[in-house]
Amino acid sequence: MDLKLGCPGGLYVLRLGHRPRRDKRITTHCGLVALALGARGIIISGGHDEAVVDSIRDVADRWHVDFSADLAGSWEDVVREFKDRGCLVVHLTMYGVNLPFVLDGLKNAFRKRGILAIIGSGKVPAAVFEMSDLNVAITHLPHSEVAALAIFADRLFGGVELLSSRSRGLIILPQHRGKAVLHRISQRSSI
Amino acid sequence: MDLKLGCPGGLYVLRLGHRPRRDKRITTHCGLVALALGARGIIISGGHDEAVVDSIRDVADRWHVDFSADLAGSWEDVVREFKDRGCLVVHLTMYGVNLPFVLDGLKNAFRKRGILAIIGSGKVPAAVFEMSDLNVAITHLPHSEVAALAIFADRLFGGVELLSSRSRGLIILPQHRGKAVLHRISQRSSI
Repeated sequence: MDLKLGCPGGLYVLRLGHRPRRDKRITTHCGLVALALGARGIIISGGHDEAVVDSIRDVADRWHVDFSADLAGSWEDVVREFKDRGCLVVHLTMYGVNLPFVLDGLKNAFRKRGILAIIGSGKVPAAVFEMSDLNVAITHLPHSEVAALAIFADRLFGGVELLSSRSRGLIILPQHRGKAVLHRISQRSSI
Repeated sequence: MDLKLGCPGGLYVLRLGHRPRRDKRITTHCGLVALALGARGIIISGGHDEAVVDSIRDVADRWHVDFSADLAGSWEDVVREFKDRGCLVVHLTMYGVNLPFVLDGLKNAFRKRGILAIIGSGKVPAAVFEMSDLNVAITHLPHSEVAALAIFADRLFGGVELLSSRSRGLIILPQHRGKAVLHRISQRSSI
């Protein structure tokens, strides 16, 4: 696996234990959330599933956002690679410390070193808790890795992705009612 | 359908267009996110699916959280019922206005009237845009109704659900490593 990371830094997401039959939609949602909320890429470990990677890349292409989606055989290798690059490895889990208590530190680490955020599926191996620099809870109730990632990224970036779009292609013009889309490249608009 | 709403107010979620075969897991995630992030209940419209409601109620029971999960035949009836009760109806859509610009107003409306947040699935009927009091975007990129709901609720409640748990049953004790669970009712702990 060659992740072709241009430089250290930024937010990357590692999705654990993907099961091609069962998790296709949830993993796709994880990828699209990572893309929309400001991450640079997602790495999917578990069952080999080209289709899920393709569907995430498709959205990135269509919206002209620089975002990578990759498959990884072993999550341990990914964690080691990011640690070697100096990234902080953060595991999102309901058993971890409350996000607000560590958010300042996370923002600092993000600016200086970059962050790899790990999100699980069913059963997360104990080694994930141990190899991560920090285990962080997005509430202490069981809900959704999609939601945990969304809130983590939104808080990490201080809501900036809610204010302006990453898209360099289609631009949505915010509306109280209805839909308005600007095709930035062709300067054609459809309202 | 009798929603048995005790009083107006609070946050309720209306999940549109549920397809029992395709959406079971995504809709369950929506329900669990609503539960974990402070909503009072979720109403699911679209295909009739007792199993999805049961699985959400199961989690509410197990964690001793007051949270309702109901099926509704027609989303229009639900919207009308909430409007009659004075609730603000907010549709989460990438075509809407940016959340930060309307957040103060939403917080006010929540305190005084309560909010019904509508989240879609595939194609959302134009009438949803029209019947909603406000169409609000959680980024202007396509990602996930699970994530949109999570960020909306987190921002609406100002992060309070990240600080303390709604659970009156099992209590997770935040840990840097590993898992610690306190059985509040029996005062038995397993660390």
